Amino acid sequence: MKKVLTYLKSNQTRFVGELAEYLKFPSVSAQPKHSKDVKSCANWLANHCRVIGLKTKVVSTAGHPIVVATTFVKRNSKLPHFLVYGHYDVQPPEPLDLWKTPPFQPRIVDGQIYARGASDNKGQHFAHLKAVESYLKTGTPLPCEITFVIEGEEEVGSEQLEPFLERNSSALACDAVVISDTGMPGKGRPALTYALRGIAALELLVHGPAKDLHSGIYGGSVENPAMALCVLLAKLRDARGRILVPGFYDRVVLLSRLERRQFSRLPFDAASFQKLLGSPKLFGESGFTSNEQRSARPTIEINGLTSGYQGEGSKTIVPAWARAKLTCRLVPDQRPAEIAKLLKQFLRKICPPTVRLVVSQGHGAEPYLVSPESRAARAALHALKSAFGSEPYLIREGGSIPIVNQFKRVLGVESLLLGLALPDDNLHSPNEKFDLDCFFGGMRMGAHLWPELAEAVRPSVNGR
Amino acid sequence: MKKVLTYLKSNQTRFVGELAEYLKFPSVSAQPKHSKDVKSCANWLANHCRVIGLKTKVVSTAGHPIVVATTFVKRNSKLPHFLVYGHYDVQPPEPLDLWKTPPFQPRIVDGQIYARGASDNKGQHFAHLKAVESYLKTGTPLPCEITFVIEGEEEVGSEQLEPFLERNSSALACDAVVISDTGMPGKGRPALTYALRGIAALELLVHGPAKDLHSGIYGGSVENPAMALCVLLAKLRDARGRILVPGFYDRVVLLSRLERRQFSRLPFDAASFQKLLGSPKLFGESGFTSNEQRSARPTIEINGLTSGYQGEGSKTIVPAWARAKLTCRLVPDQRPAEIAKLLKQFLRKICPPTVRLVVSQGHGAEPYLVSPESRAARAALHALKSAFGSEPYLIREGGSIPIVNQFKRVLGVESLLLGLALPDDNLHSPNEKFDLDCFFGGMRMGAHLWPELAEAVRPSVNGR
Repeated sequence: MKKVLTYLKSNQTRFVGELAEYLKFPSVSAQPKHSKDVKSCANWLANHCRVIGLKTKVVSTAGHPIVVATTFVKRNSKLPHFLVYGHYDVQPPEPLDLWKTPPFQPRIVDGQIYARGASDNKGQHFAHLKAVESYLKTGTPLPCEITFVIEGEEEVGSEQLEPFLERNSSALACDAVVISDTGMPGKGRPALTYALRGIAALELLVHGPAKDLHSGIYGGSVENPAMALCVLLAKLRDARGRILVPGFYDRVVLLSRLERRQFSRLPFDAASFQKLLGSPKLFGESGFTSNEQRSARPTIEINGLTSGYQGEGSKTIVPAWARAKLTCRLVPDQRPAEIAKLLKQFLRKICPPTVRLVVSQGHGAEPYLVSPESRAARAALHALKSAFGSEPYLIREGGSIPIVNQFKRVLGVESLLLGLALPDDNLHSPNEKFDLDCFFGGMRMGAHLWPELAEAVRPSVNGR
Repeated sequence: MKKVLTYLKSNQTRFVGELAEYLKFPSVSAQPKHSKDVKSCANWLANHCRVIGLKTKVVSTAGHPIVVATTFVKRNSKLPHFLVYGHYDVQPPEPLDLWKTPPFQPRIVDGQIYARGASDNKGQHFAHLKAVESYLKTGTPLPCEITFVIEGEEEVGSEQLEPFLERNSSALACDAVVISDTGMPGKGRPALTYALRGIAALELLVHGPAKDLHSGIYGGSVENPAMALCVLLAKLRDARGRILVPGFYDRVVLLSRLERRQFSRLPFDAASFQKLLGSPKLFGESGFTSNEQRSARPTIEINGLTSGYQGEGSKTIVPAWARAKLTCRLVPDQRPAEIAKLLKQFLRKICPPTVRLVVSQGHGAEPYLVSPESRAARAALHALKSAFGSEPYLIREGGSIPIVNQFKRVLGVESLLLGLALPDDNLHSPNEKFDLDCFFGGMRMGAHLWPELAEAVRPSVNGR
């Protein structure tokens, strides 16, 4: 391990230069004008993997290619096998005029490398590549086999990933997936993201009169569907932020003491959080902190409202219909289909007979949880601590990461989310950057991770 | 009077032909391509008034001209003076493919004349012109002076009418205004519309976070302004249809026994009314009939809702803001500014500190009421009974007719609304028509009206 770490340290300058080369590709997956750049980027990455010593191929898909690089030519079935997931595609850089330096001309200022894709996600998976390089180049035997799966469509929905996993499920059969594509709460505060919220989307359409009616001639003698919709929606939540749909919380796994302690460790300042939101006052389910509310508690959000006249001035109608788009954020062990059903049942029950309610169900995603006390999670925490020199945080994220569910569904394995991005890294925004200390820390984490993880999944130890 | 009525009867066929001529003009005030037609129509009408024997001028305005025709050259100050208001402009005929016959090629089928503008409003004021013609052509002395004011912009907001009234307020000083531009409850069921609802428009804008937020990352820790808006709106009304704004009903004049009896006389079938609305079930303030609810009771209607994402599928955001457009329909003696103020106060009081509420006030119109027991109203009722041979109805209409308030404000006089349109006349819709029996009845009403009205306003009798 010492050789590995020394190699990492002594080659830092070269690594930063290589990352800068990688960041020069405008691999914007969403913009057809960049499809050649996306391809060139994949080829550069594949070539780099080969130089490192990985067996590499560029796999064509119906969309952008996937770069697959392995530490083995033929798998040694006695060793555990891990996947490292990443994506070489980036968000569009627009609006360009808000960038202080051009998005595809990487520049280092105050220990930060500025470029589109720096932290999301090129810099993060590049740290893993460099860690593996240091094993290979120092001749240090890896205690496991590793396959890098670096796709080119994460920013446009990863549509080709699941078919790819399915086509290659036996070659990709593994013990766990490692993903560095999330964040850490602050510099020098490494973190394992052990839970994600799921989602259930619904659309409510309330039909009133057959067509918009003159509110002078008919108003008062017919239910206004916009009002009926508001009354329905207002009944979903109480003033303390508690969802009133019967059964909604039934499967919610309560936060453990350990988890709440972890939440309370997170750096948090109410005034700056409120300023960040720009809201007049913070609000959320009572009995929980803001961080708990936004990552460990389920919600029902109205994402959109539409009814009647929306232009300038006024139009005196009783609208024919009113619509609301809703999404519920779900936490373990809530199930999207069940929550959608409970919501539908409740809405149908409370809907007055004066309007007709149509509820249609949208997409759903399961919430995700890896026990922070599992052997794999503990191994990751050890690696984080060794790499960053401080007690890692255990965090939950409020959003969904669909690929995590794809790995679980297709390969039946858990993902360890070991994010290296800082809160001020401007992901998806102008002036995206990656902190070089996070880059170097990420490499060290990568170096420490493989012995820890290999040990954690060893059959002799965990009885598998 | 006998001579007058005989003249009306024996000239019916000619009158229908003249009305058909009048209806041929596509005097669509809203469409610039028809501005020449609007002008030609005004000139035709003015010429027709002159042929009848009226002193006539076409008054230019900043918009379409107003035709002014009087029974006098110099006013006889000993006689009462009445205005007859009408409008020669019409609604756009579109969609043209839904018309069974072309909108500006009048056609008579089953005693109905079909054309755009037939009942709204050419046919209705033409009946008044014919009634006055029968006085003038038979040499029967009129017991009053009459001024016809027929404008060309009613369908686009009558913006030039009030300045015109102001400029000519002394020439137009009068005892009352007669307007046939409303409806009757059914064939052979004449009616005096003695009350109209007023209006107060408001816009509510609820600000939440400074910008749309990711509902995964922040949802749960910040108030959703769309939800806050729904909660506010849901508190405006209870499940029995009663408005919950304190003071809202304070000035509402209760319906008298006479009025409720009049309401109960109106032909009404709940099943067909519901079918007309197309609503799953009737709904309104409990304790009142549908007709009372829609014309004699105040309301708060949501005319439009806007928030967040409105396109296909879903967008997982906490929207930055949510907006509702509201209008209150007001009844005597509610005051638009006061109601708007009460509503604002209530909303501000119940608005939580987690969002910022901005209420902006839109247009307002006073409700209108002529006592059905006033001398002028009784005179009109007599005329209606004589003309149609049945007991007239006293009705309230739920909409506003802004010109009525203009006449009151500028000239200080009441308007008698003696509508001749039937519920199935397709006003503002394809296949607009006017029932010829209503046309003939309207002429007879016009003939009977002047002696009755002149008598009603005579100083010696009513002590003025």
